[in-house]
Amino acid sequence: MDYYPEPIENLISEFAKLPSIGKRSAERLAISLVFEDDDKVNSFIEAIRLVKSTVKQCTICGNLTDGEICSVCSDRSRNGKLLCVVESVKDLIAIEKSGEFRGKYFVLGNLLSPIKNLELSDIVIDKLKNRVKDGVEEVILAISPTIEGEMTGIFIKEVLKEFDVVVTKIASGIPVGGNLEYFDGDTLFKALEDRREI
Amino acid sequence: MDYYPEPIENLISEFAKLPSIGKRSAERLAISLVFEDDDKVNSFIEAIRLVKSTVKQCTICGNLTDGEICSVCSDRSRNGKLLCVVESVKDLIAIEKSGEFRGKYFVLGNLLSPIKNLELSDIVIDKLKNRVKDGVEEVILAISPTIEGEMTGIFIKEVLKEFDVVVTKIASGIPVGGNLEYFDGDTLFKALEDRREI
Repeated sequence: MDYYPEPIENLISEFAKLPSIGKRSAERLAISLVFEDDDKVNSFIEAIRLVKSTVKQCTICGNLTDGEICSVCSDRSRNGKLLCVVESVKDLIAIEKSGEFRGKYFVLGNLLSPIKNLELSDIVIDKLKNRVKDGVEEVILAISPTIEGEMTGIFIKEVLKEFDVVVTKIASGIPVGGNLEYFDGDTLFKALEDRREI
Repeated sequence: MDYYPEPIENLISEFAKLPSIGKRSAERLAISLVFEDDDKVNSFIEAIRLVKSTVKQCTICGNLTDGEICSVCSDRSRNGKLLCVVESVKDLIAIEKSGEFRGKYFVLGNLLSPIKNLELSDIVIDKLKNRVKDGVEEVILAISPTIEGEMTGIFIKEVLKEFDVVVTKIASGIPVGGNLEYFDGDTLFKALEDRREI
């Protein structure tokens, strides 16, 4: 049974389609817009329109850009010999926020996942090969250490075998500030295995 | 420093203005729209537009409606002698969902709050008085039992003193299914005080 007028029910289901928005949040959001000034709602709508009409993926790396080439790819001060492979734009931004990495990126779009029936498309693999051919010396796999992530890493390593390139992956271990006792055996094992001299 | 193209940063801040959307969710939402089909984004925008152009507050009770009078107020089978006063449309819908109440409503819009510098406007008070004058026999205050809620209840009781009307408020106590040991002393005291013979 519908408790709200139909346009509200409709907007609630539109909000609920967005990631991480549950039914309750969708209700709150839809109602809040009724009480919001027209101007504010219009600028919200305009912001959505502008993103849809101007923002695309960078044709080189897959990062988001409002031009053709993203700000990382067009930054000549960055080291093109270091190529960091990530699953998504969000992961790319997370690494950028750390402020430590000065190489370039390649966004896969998804990981290999037999369960979700996902593979890496030929287009993505060809693009990656072309990037690597173009003078890359090290490919860093900055992929979450899940089963899908590990599988994807092994697959990429295999795909790049024909090139003279070092393939590395980011370290697994205890997060900085993390409390050792709360982490699982696999993580502790990895942390011990990858120990470093101080 | 901006890590995203400007239209994305802009949309992130628009999303973050909405209730219960934090910075992280706003980022996720803004990026998700880039990867969404144009059709879906357009129907989202249309849903917002439709709400803004058609949904208003019922002129009688303050509930949401896409007409002049809401579905509750125009329902002749409901008991107009019972008037349930609530803080917000969300509270009204919560009571409707319980399916137990067959009277009518009055939405205050806000509670009295000296801290937030909020009072009940003269317009709202006049409207409430006019409703009560119009044959109401019992006013049920269905207001959260917070300090603001209690203050508002006392104020409304005072305002309605001149009318021949019973003013009641919803019971405070342990929620159904709640575990007694987890509730505070005030709640337990109220629950004991308002005990009923079974």
